[in-house]
Order: sequence, then C-alpha cells, then structure tokens
Amino acid sequence: MTPRGRTFFANPGPTNIPDSILRAIDRPSQDFMEESFIALFEDCVRRLKRVIGTDGHVFMYAASGHGAWEASLVNLFSPGDTLLMLESGYFSESWTEMARKFGLEVVIVPAEWRRGAQIEAVKAALAADTAHRFKAVCTVHNETSTGVTLPIREVRAALDETGHPALLLSDTISSLASLPYAMDAWGIDLTVGGSQKGLMLPTGISFTAVSEKAMAAHRVARLPRHYLDWSVMLGRRHRSFVGTIPTQMFHGLAEALRLIEGEGLEAVWARHRRLAGAVRAAVRVWSGNQGPELFCIDPERCSDSVTAVLMPEGHDAEAVRRAAFGRYNVSLGGGLGRLGGRVFRIGHLGDLNEPMILGTLAAVEMSLADAGVPHGRGGVAAAMDALSL
Amino acid sequence: MTPRGRTFFANPGPTNIPDSILRAIDRPSQDFMEESFIALFEDCVRRLKRVIGTDGHVFMYAASGHGAWEASLVNLFSPGDTLLMLESGYFSESWTEMARKFGLEVVIVPAEWRRGAQIEAVKAALAADTAHRFKAVCTVHNETSTGVTLPIREVRAALDETGHPALLLSDTISSLASLPYAMDAWGIDLTVGGSQKGLMLPTGISFTAVSEKAMAAHRVARLPRHYLDWSVMLGRRHRSFVGTIPTQMFHGLAEALRLIEGEGLEAVWARHRRLAGAVRAAVRVWSGNQGPELFCIDPERCSDSVTAVLMPEGHDAEAVRRAAFGRYNVSLGGGLGRLGGRVFRIGHLGDLNEPMILGTLAAVEMSLADAGVPHGRGGVAAAMDALSL
Amino acid sequence: MTPRGRTFFANPGPTNIPDSILRAIDRPSQDFMEESFIALFEDCVRRLKRVIGTDGHVFMYAASGHGAWEASLVNLFSPGDTLLMLESGYFSESWTEMARKFGLEVVIVPAEWRRGAQIEAVKAALAADTAHRFKAVCTVHNETSTGVTLPIREVRAALDETGHPALLLSDTISSLASLPYAMDAWGIDLTVGGSQKGLMLPTGISFTAVSEKAMAAHRVARLPRHYLDWSVMLGRRHRSFVGTIPTQMFHGLAEALRLIEGEGLEAVWARHRRLAGAVRAAVRVWSGNQGPELFCIDPERCSDSVTAVLMPEGHDAEAVRRAAFGRYNVSLGGGLGRLGGRVFRIGHLGDLNEPMILGTLAAVEMSLADAGVPHGRGGVAAAMDALSL
Amino acid sequence: MTPRGRTFFANPGPTNIPDSILRAIDRPSQDFMEESFIALFEDCVRRLKRVIGTDGHVFMYAASGHGAWEASLVNLFSPGDTLLMLESGYFSESWTEMARKFGLEVVIVPAEWRRGAQIEAVKAALAADTAHRFKAVCTVHNETSTGVTLPIREVRAALDETGHPALLLSDTISSLASLPYAMDAWGIDLTVGGSQKGLMLPTGISFTAVSEKAMAAHRVARLPRHYLDWSVMLGRRHRSFVGTIPTQMFHGLAEALRLIEGEGLEAVWARHRRLAGAVRAAVRVWSGNQGPELFCIDPERCSDSVTAVLMPEGHDAEAVRRAAFGRYNVSLGGGLGRLGGRVFRIGHLGDLNEPMILGTLAAVEMSLADAGVPHGRGGVAAAMDALSL
Repeated sequence: MTPRGRTFFANPGPTNIPDSILRAIDRPSQDFMEESFIALFEDCVRRLKRVIGTDGHVFMYAASGHGAWEASLVNLFSPGDTLLMLESGYFSESWTEMARKFGLEVVIVPAEWRRGAQIEAVKAALAADTAHRFKAVCTVHNETSTGVTLPIREVRAALDETGHPALLLSDTISSLASLPYAMDAWGIDLTVGGSQKGLMLPTGISFTAVSEKAMAAHRVARLPRHYLDWSVMLGRRHRSFVGTIPTQMFHGLAEALRLIEGEGLEAVWARHRRLAGAVRAAVRVWSGNQGPELFCIDPERCSDSVTAVLMPEGHDAEAVRRAAFGRYNVSLGGGLGRLGGRVFRIGHLGDLNEPMILGTLAAVEMSLADAGVPHGRGGVAAAMDALSL
Repeated sequence: MTPRGRTFFANPGPTNIPDSILRAIDRPSQDFMEESFIALFEDCVRRLKRVIGTDGHVFMYAASGHGAWEASLVNLFSPGDTLLMLESGYFSESWTEMARKFGLEVVIVPAEWRRGAQIEAVKAALAADTAHRFKAVCTVHNETSTGVTLPIREVRAALDETGHPALLLSDTISSLASLPYAMDAWGIDLTVGGSQKGLMLPTGISFTAVSEKAMAAHRVARLPRHYLDWSVMLGRRHRSFVGTIPTQMFHGLAEALRLIEGEGLEAVWARHRRLAGAVRAAVRVWSGNQGPELFCIDPERCSDSVTAVLMPEGHDAEAVRRAAFGRYNVSLGGGLGRLGGRVFRIGHLGDLNEPMILGTLAAVEMSLADAGVPHGRGGVAAAMDALSL
Repeated sequence: MTPRGRTFFANPGPTNIPDSILRAIDRPSQDFMEESFIALFEDCVRRLKRVIGTDGHVFMYAASGHGAWEASLVNLFSPGDTLLMLESGYFSESWTEMARKFGLEVVIVPAEWRRGAQIEAVKAALAADTAHRFKAVCTVHNETSTGVTLPIREVRAALDETGHPALLLSDTISSLASLPYAMDAWGIDLTVGGSQKGLMLPTGISFTAVSEKAMAAHRVARLPRHYLDWSVMLGRRHRSFVGTIPTQMFHGLAEALRLIEGEGLEAVWARHRRLAGAVRAAVRVWSGNQGPELFCIDPERCSDSVTAVLMPEGHDAEAVRRAAFGRYNVSLGGGLGRLGGRVFRIGHLGDLNEPMILGTLAAVEMSLADAGVPHGRGGVAAAMDALSL
Repeated sequence: MTPRGRTFFANPGPTNIPDSILRAIDRPSQDFMEESFIALFEDCVRRLKRVIGTDGHVFMYAASGHGAWEASLVNLFSPGDTLLMLESGYFSESWTEMARKFGLEVVIVPAEWRRGAQIEAVKAALAADTAHRFKAVCTVHNETSTGVTLPIREVRAALDETGHPALLLSDTISSLASLPYAMDAWGIDLTVGGSQKGLMLPTGISFTAVSEKAMAAHRVARLPRHYLDWSVMLGRRHRSFVGTIPTQMFHGLAEALRLIEGEGLEAVWARHRRLAGAVRAAVRVWSGNQGPELFCIDPERCSDSVTAVLMPEGHDAEAVRRAAFGRYNVSLGGGLGRLGGRVFRIGHLGDLNEPMILGTLAAVEMSLADAGVPHGRGGVAAAMDALSL
C-alpha cells in the first residue's frame, strides 16, 4: 500500500511541479501553427532567455536533457573534433561517452568527484593546447550526481587568460532557475537546459541557448543530424522543434515563468541558497557519531540545488531510501553509477519552502534511525536554526 | 507575493484533498438520473455507511455541515420540543443557537471548554428529567474549536442507565473517518457528517445517518422544511437530495472511499492517533518556559484530529498564524468565538503523513520565535521521538 | 460500454463546463477567512451583480437552486402570508409545494404549460386583490421543464398598473447569463440563481439577489431559518454563507465571469438567441410528417436556453433519449413530472457553439429514426440555414 | 476573442485527448526508478505491443514521431546503405530528406500523391535490385498529408514474391490504433508510432517496435547515435529511453490502453471506418457544383483516419480553415508542403463519435459558404445517411 498523504519529492529531478503548472498543462490539443499558440510560444522563448541570461538563439526539443546534450554535440562539431571535458561526476562521464559515440575526441581534466575539476588543472590543460585542438570546453555547472557546483566564471577566466578560442559549453540542467547564472555576462557559448528541474515542469522539453560564436561553429559542423538540427529549425515557423510541438508544455512553461518572475529570479536563487544551507546544517549534525556526511568536501562548491550524502562504511544508502519512501512517503535520489548504494541525494530545487524541506529532513533523520545508521541527532533543529538566521 | 512551494494546510477544516480526489472531481457535467451515475451514487452510499458504522438511512444534502445540522433538527422535532445539549465549545453553542431559532427549547449541560461536558452532569440531567421532556441528547463528538473529544459511548451508557428514551445525536463533522466511530454499535440515533474533513473532499455535500428510532421521530416531526426534508427525499430516485445533485462530488467520494478502504478504516484511525501524539508531544515541549500549551486539559479527551493551542497571556495567536502563513506557507486555524486570538489550531486530520505534520510543527516552532512568543525549544524533536515509538 | 468520444451534454442543467473553469476549481483547500480568498470572493460578488443587473444585496448558499428558492421564502415571509404564483410548469409547481410546506398560502394564476401564465390573468388577479393580501408575485423567468419564457417586464407593468405593492420574485436559474435580464431596471425584488447553468459551474452554490424593498420585508419575516438566514449572514465576514464556504467554486466563478465579460454579456445573450433559433428551425422541420413538435406554442415565449420537444402520440420520448445517449453519446433532458415520456428537452445554454449544437441536432435526428419516430427529414440543414442568416 | 464553446479539434494530429487521459497525466512528479512506476511502465509496454500486433522489442523515446523515424534510421543502418522509399506525400519526402542527411542512399518509387506508390512499381524496383542493395523498404502506412493509405501487406507480398531480403519499415504514426494493423502477422520489421494520434495522448513520446530480423541489422549498424540508441537502452532498467523518463505520460498511456481495450481494438478500427465513411459521403456531395473533392482518388486507399479535401481552382483552403476556426471553433488541418493552400484536412482519428464528426462537417459546410467556395449542399445529410447504414 502506498503510504498516505502527499509524497515529498526530494529527488533532484524531476522536481515538485506546482499545482498551477499541472493545471495549465492539463488542456486539450491545439494546432501548433495557430496564431495564438505561436504568440504564446514566442513569449515563452523571450522570457526563458531572461532566465538564462542571454540574447542568443534558443532551440527547443521534444526530448529530455540528454537530447539537448546530443543536440549540442551534433550541431557544433565534426567527426574527429576534440573536446576538453571537466570531470565532475556521473554526468560528465555520460557526456564523454556520448561525445565519443559521435566520433569526437575527448580530453578529460580529471577530478576527485567530491571536489570536481580544479581550475588550475583546467588552465594547465588549456595552456598546453597551443595548437588549439580543443574546439570546446565542456562543463557541468551543477553536477546532479554529486551535489558539486563548478565555478564557471573561473573556467571562462582560464580561457581568457590562456587566450584559448574554444567554445565554453555549460550543462545547467540542475542549476537553471535555481543557482545564479548569466550566460552572456559570463561568456558562455552554449547552455543546455531542461524542463523538469528549476523550471518545475514535467520531463519532455529541453533546449540549448547558443551564442553567435557557437552559431558560427554550427555552420561548419558536419556531424549528421536532423531531428535536433538547428539549421532545419531555423527554416521553420517556430525556429525550434522538428516535428510536432508539445503545445501543452508551453502553457505550463508560461505559468512557470510567471511564478519565477513573480518571485523574482534573484529571490529564487536566494531561496535555494537559504534552503540548501538548512539541508547542509542538518547533514553536518548527522555526520557526528560517525554518521553520514556531505559528499561535497569543498565548502565553496556545495550545491544549492542538490545535496549528496555519503554513507558511513558498511551502511547502504538504499536502506535509508527505502525507509524514507516506504514509511514516510519521502522520495530521495539514489547514488548514480559508481556512487550506487554509497550516497543518497536530497533534491532541494524548484518549488520548495521551509516546511517542505524540514519535513523532508525530519523524515530522513527518522529513516537513518530506522535503518540502523549511526548519526548525530538534532539535524532538523540545526536546519531550523539555519533558517532563522 | 504568495510564499513559494506547497501550502501546508493545517487548518482543521476543510483539509488536505489528495490529488487523486481532485482529479476525480475535475470532470464534465453528467445527468444525475443516468443509470451509471445512479450506480455510482448507490455504491458510494453503501460504502459510506460502512465508514459511519450503520445500516440506517443516509440522507445527503447539497450543503455544508451546518445544513446537515439544520436537517437533523427540522426533520426530527416539532416547535416547543426540548433538547439536552452537552456544552463543548463554539459548535455546541452554534447548534444551540440554531435550535432556538427553530423554536426548540435547549437545556444545556454546562462545561468548561477545556474539558467538555462531564458525564456525571449528563447523567444527573437525564435522571432529573423524569418527565422525559428531552427529545434528544445532542453531542459534538469532536469539538473542532477546542480539540476536545467527547466519550459518546459514555453518554449512551448514561441514557441507558437512566432509562431515558431520548434520541442520541452526534456531530461527527471533524471526527468521521479520523477517530473511531461506530454509529449502530454505539447506539447512536443520528450522525451528522460532512465532506470536507476526514472524507478529504471539498466543501459541498453533507449528510445525516438516521436510525430507525429517529425515523420514527421524523414521521411525527412538524417543523417546516422542504430542501432538507427526508420525506421528500424518500420519494425520489436517489432517496437523497432535493434538487440537482452535485455529480462531480460523488466521483471524488468514490475515490476517497477507495483510499480509506485501501488503508483500512482502523489503520486510518491509528494513523490519526499516531500523528496527533506527535503534535501533542511538540506542544508539551513548547509549553515549557511559559509557552503556549494544550487547550485540552483532560488527557483522555485530547482530540486526534485537531489540537487547539492556548497562547500565554499577553500574546496574540493571530501573530503566530500570520507568521506561519506569511513566512512559511503554513495555514493554521484561528480561535473561534470567544477563543479568538487566544488559541490557534493545528488540524491533523485527513490525508496526512509524518513529514507533513513535522514540517508543519517546524514552521509553527519557527513562527513562535518570529512572533516573539516564549516557548520551550525542541518541539519537533519531541514529535519525531513520539513517532519513533 | 460507454460510447466513445466526448459526451454532448444537451441537458438543460447542469450544463457544459468549460475546461478552464474545471481546471480553476481543481485546486487544494484554502482558508476561507484568509485575505486573498476574501478579496477573490468580494470581487466575484461584485461582478456577479453586474450579470444580474443589480446593486442590491447578494446572498450566497452552499446549496443547489432549490436551496435558494427556500432561502427566498424563509427570509421574506411569515406563516400565513399569501403569494401569487404564476403557473408555468414543473418548477412553478415545485415552488408552490415548497411554499405550502412552510405554511404560506399560494394563489395560482393557472396556465396551459405550452404557453405559461397570461399577463391579462395576472393583471386580473392583482386587481382583484384590493386588500393587498399577496405579499409577493412569484415567477419563473424561464421554465426549464417546458422551454417557455415569461415576460417579466410585463408582470412588473401589471403590478405598476394595478398599484399593487407585492414583491416581485423571479427564478432565473435557467435564464441568468443566457437570456436578457436586468433586475434593477426591470423592478424585480428578488432574483434566484444557481451555479450550474448559464454560469457554467458545477452544482453547488446558489444565490439570491435582494432589493431594498425585499430587505425591508426580510426584517419583519418570521419563518424559522438559520442555514439560509440573511440576518445571520450579514453578521459574518463574507455577508453570505452560514458555515464553511466552498472556496474552490469561487475560483471557478471568477473564471466564468472572465469568460462572460470577455465575450460581453449582450453577446452571450445574442449567441443563445442565435443557437436557439437553429434548434427551433430543426424541430419545425421534424414536426413535418406528424413528427415531434415544439412544446412551446407561443412564438414570443420560446426559450432561448432550453427547447422542449413534444412527442407525437404513441411515441415515448425516453426511447429517443436512450438512442441518443446509448448510440451517439448525446445526453438529452427528459420530461419532468406530468411531462415524463411526453417530451425530451434540448438544453442550449452555457458554453455552446455552432458545431456543438449541430452535432447534437444531427444525433437527435438520427435517434428519431433509430427509435422509429416519424419526423420530417432535414432538420440539421434547416438549422444550418438558420445559422447562416 | 476566442469563439465560445469547445474547440472541435479536427486536425489530424495531435488529436482529441479524452478527459480521463488528461486527468491521468495531471499528477505530481515521480521517481522513474521506483518499483510501482516500473510495474506501470512494463504493463504499458506489454499492452502497447498488443495494439501494434507484435511480440518484438519496443523502444520508447522522449521525442515526437520525427525522433522515432530518426531512431529507426540510426539504429538500423550504416553510412552508404541504400533504402527503397515508397513515395506517398509530404512525410515520405521528409523521411527521404532525413535519411539523406545521415548519408544514406534513397531510391524512390515515385507516385502521384493522390494515389501513392503503386505495388507493381514496387515489385519492379525490388526485382531489378538483384544485388540486394536495398537494405530496407520504407513505407508510410497512412500518409497524413494526403489521406492515402498504403496496402502494406501487398508490399510484403512484393518482397516475398521477389525474394528480396530487405527489411520492411512502416510509419504508423497516423494509423496505429485507428486502422487495422498487425505487425508480426503482416511481416513488418519495424513500426514507427507516436503518442499523439490514435493513442490519444499529448505529443511527447514515440516508439519503434522492432522484429528480430531488424535487431540483427541493428547489431551491425554503424551510424552514430546515443540518445536514440537501442543498445544503450537495452542496458538500462526500462530497456527504453536514454535519460529522464516522462512518467506522467505513462499514466496517460495506461488510461488510453484501458479505453482501447474496453472498446476492443477491432471495434476501434470499425468506428474509424464508419466515421470516415461519413466524412467521405459529405465531401462527395460538396464536390458537386464544382466544389472541393476528395484528394485521394483511389477508393481502395482512402484513409479512415484523415481526409484531405482538394480545393477547386482559384480557391484558397486557408480561407476555409480561417472561417472554420474563427467563426465555428473548428480546427482543421492545412495543406503541407506543396499542398499548402490547395487542400484542407479533416482529422477523424482517436477519440471521436458521431456528433463530433457531424458537428465538424456542418461547420465545414458553413465555412465553405462563408468563404465563397462553390459546393454541393447537403453534405451533412449525406454523412448522416452514411452513418445510418
């Protein structure tokens, strides 16, 4: 039997969808070539650009975030091109795997996952690439698998300092509309984003924002593509999508943007920071008594949208997740890839407030006890204190 | 600006409506005389009777709970009849006022609101009524304004012991499907219930379950009535309602009953008891340091569906409510009637689980601090401990 | 098995509910004393008054239309008062029955149901009542059971011409926001309305708009009441409702008013007239070949919101309804009371357009054939012609 | 202002979504790795296979139908491979364009669009390909742009007769769950389908069903791919999707399958045939008086899911569409590609019944008049007659 009451969805993606967004999506079919839809669509794109911080092109896909990643690769590169990938965790690995499947060379800046790639190593790699073999530097702004954020502005600075002409690509799937981000101001050439995290929508649309410099690269890129091809899109009425457009989603996106604009984008960021601070305060208390601890060990890089919690040796993260879901109706994220069983993840992005996060933390703390995991007690109280500052 | 995230609705009524119930209600119009609707309707009534614990008649109204109260009076009594009303709080007062407006005499068993009417006093009143002037004993099973539950079986015993023939009427608006109740087994003649609390529906339908003894009283009752008239209803196809039937509600009721049956009615009651225990544990901690305390001072009668919290002298409950709603998106109940400003109420009935109640308590604890109300700290931790037993 | 596709709901009440209204209603519980709800509520009442055409008081009930009828009686009259009821059909009979149950005397202006009460007869009755025994003249603006509209302004004129001081009461349940109506300008003292017809909402709220003259009558009225008592309501924050307020409904009402205002109230009326003309054109064709005919035989009084169709002798209207619903998923209204089996009714009020009504008429025409009812063919074509004018 | 009443969505895709499907989709986020979701997912795939008529593999994508087309190409072929494409209309052209972008050779069996490719020509092309250069024969089962259906079993027979080993690929986007189809029984190796037509869902998921023979081809196919890669999918828990799964859609799909199974798949096909016959009867009447005519001129191939209507010379289809949408709230499909302005299309697939299609036809007939297009009158009556057979 499903536990009663509302599920606390503390998975880092998808995220909680506000009722008003679900209701906006819950509507009949519509002709996507009809004028009123086109007006809605164009308005959404215009307002989404403000969230991304760009005046560039935005191409949208009926696809999940992985589709937008693939779109970036196939639209920008040619077989044999080389990318510099900053290791961050499961998703930088996935992106590397994808690039190699398309015949691209990938040079990795290796990193301990609990910290992410170090800027000095990036700078060294760029400086060493005097032949400018790297067509692009690929970054995961917020690594969802580890809860580690990368300081992208410092990557930009490394490019500038070394005078390297590579494009700067940034995956913001779990950071957009949650963490501060400003594509154009930060000198980013391509931003990958999806619907199902900070934008608080169901999975189903994803997008890339593209600088003029990246558009120039696109024009000479020779990887085969059609469904995700920007050039095909530019010839269509919406300048996005190949094929049928999921119209309902745009009614949801308009409502999401209304909520974000109503709160104010900077206030959204501040709320994420504030709630993340409460989560970290709780985890720090739990880590006493040889309990689970923050996976991220660089305090400057702890993510404000997801916190990965590392289990003490000999304890299985899945047991905690099962207790949380089965007994308390709280859905936590599990460990991805090599972190399977070793971490659980608390998503704290999107439509969230204090009692949601405190109820979640209380359930996690009880689940640690239920699962027989040693831990310091009083995590929720510490979170409340953090929120009272 | 509305605070972000989901509102925690900790008001004792209406209550949280599960998404599946809201979606079941969200449907087009339907002919209420159409066979498939009649089948749905009859199935709902049959299953609702199991929740009430009766084989008697159930009459339903397009009305709120007050309408069902009025239906009880106008269908059972004649001008000049006398009722014995057990004082419990705001709602026993309201029922008294209503009865008097219909020309009924009301004798009150007075009570301190923090305890509710005492059984000995009830017994004394019944014993003194040797002329059997009292046509009915009126009780509020769970007084929503005070969080005090009345032991109705003891009232039944008092009637039996004194050999008094009065009908026993019970308002279960905030207890049905939350607290143990068994109309027939407990010897109750009329049960008043509504959609918007333990049944987890929107406000809009209410009902009375009626014993054969009460039906006999109905047949001689002379108060004027039509919209709420059981005799009119008995002549109609649904044997309920005068006028158009709100069909959508019954799709919601079917889903509510499915949820209740899936969990098991006794498990529903146990869950309410368990969560209420957590709330009381928190309030007991807060009451330290001259903080707010449980309004109910009889531990045997503390309600498992709503807890009224009495403010310390000189502090306004509304300030706490404003902080909880404005800062944390938690909606608490206010004090009714003479309790205005003196208590706030935490509803904990209906579709509720541990993180919902713990998130609520955490927000209340922070709101006490924000409002400058002295209180013992650590209420949430105590609630978590109570839930771990 | 339910027939596939969307049900065509051509029942005269409830009516088709636009998706945007259903979605607006599909939302969580809310504290009805909370400021943002009160603002919404007051805005709805203010805008609803414009639809009614009044500056008077509006009292709202958690009840169906029958509850609002009852509210009118119990708030305005005292036992033994006399009403003049204009016979129109099933609903004037129902209102008469209700009034008598409350101890009121009812004098009826009798009428053939296919025409409704004649103004000369009304005038004669008023003129004969030199003692001014009639406290009120009760009218059904649009008799839902017969599809006959009453010229209320002529009733007002009759009162004026005879100098009779009686209140003028009007049931607009199936006319409001469908047929032209202007309460204050037309000199009406009380308007009864409900949510589930022209306002395109589910069943569940109803209301009465009350003139100052009627409020004066209320102050001396002595029928017992509480749930529907205006004086109780005037002492409450919303000046409406006794007990819990169905908050979700008001989000739906706000959306309904937005739709009505967006189209324009006069355009709404014109659309109803236009679509009703198409229905009548079809029925007139069907009436050839000894087929079914318009029940209303006064062309000036044929309703623009519902059309009752009288079966030829020896044919059962229920057979047509069964064919329409079972084979074509079209829900027609049946005959009420003495008209059972003799008429079926096509509702054409609320959220309706040309293809909805033409699809309905096409299914009715096929159902006539399926049920073996003689009829002139080409009704739909005639309806299309009527719409092309 | 949007016209009032419900929009009649007679566009051939997406299609009308039943309310129960929209409500099933309207639900919170969920962990797609959670056991209850996996059970739902696997049940959906199992039941979807029955609709497709296959025991093969089904791979699903977060993508529109174009994505599923692309998935077929990149998973089955290697650069330089040759396909035989049967010309049918806009979509066979699109598929050709896509294939060429991936470096595939495409040999076309040319055809007049009003008939589609002829089987003799297919047979000749296959017979001439003695070197078995064609790796696959690509067909559009139902060409959405023209309303012409291809007899796929005859294509299979041509392959068998010529002993050609090519794979047989079939795009069923606008035929699945609308027209008879049986993948395995018909000897088809790959079926492309999408959510937004016969399955009555929003746009957002698409899929390919794959025979063992095609899986063998996949294992040697070398086109680059990742997001759509079957081999990657086979390594994942759901054996479908790369990246986040749109969970809400599967609740909708389960409801869609429940509706289809409840009606019965053969009854669904029969209903489409019956309603399509009515549409064609109307168009045949309109074609009198030099009016618009059926685009499809092969009576054996007229589609039962969409009818393209060819305008008389000098008349613009867009004028008819504008009248239909602007005046009657009926959304028709426009002409695609070279058919722009020359045809309008009536979609009649998915959740549809008699009054829906007759209301649509009535509005189209009135729109022809409004747009000044000559036409025979009485199309709706002819449609009604066709339905009465």
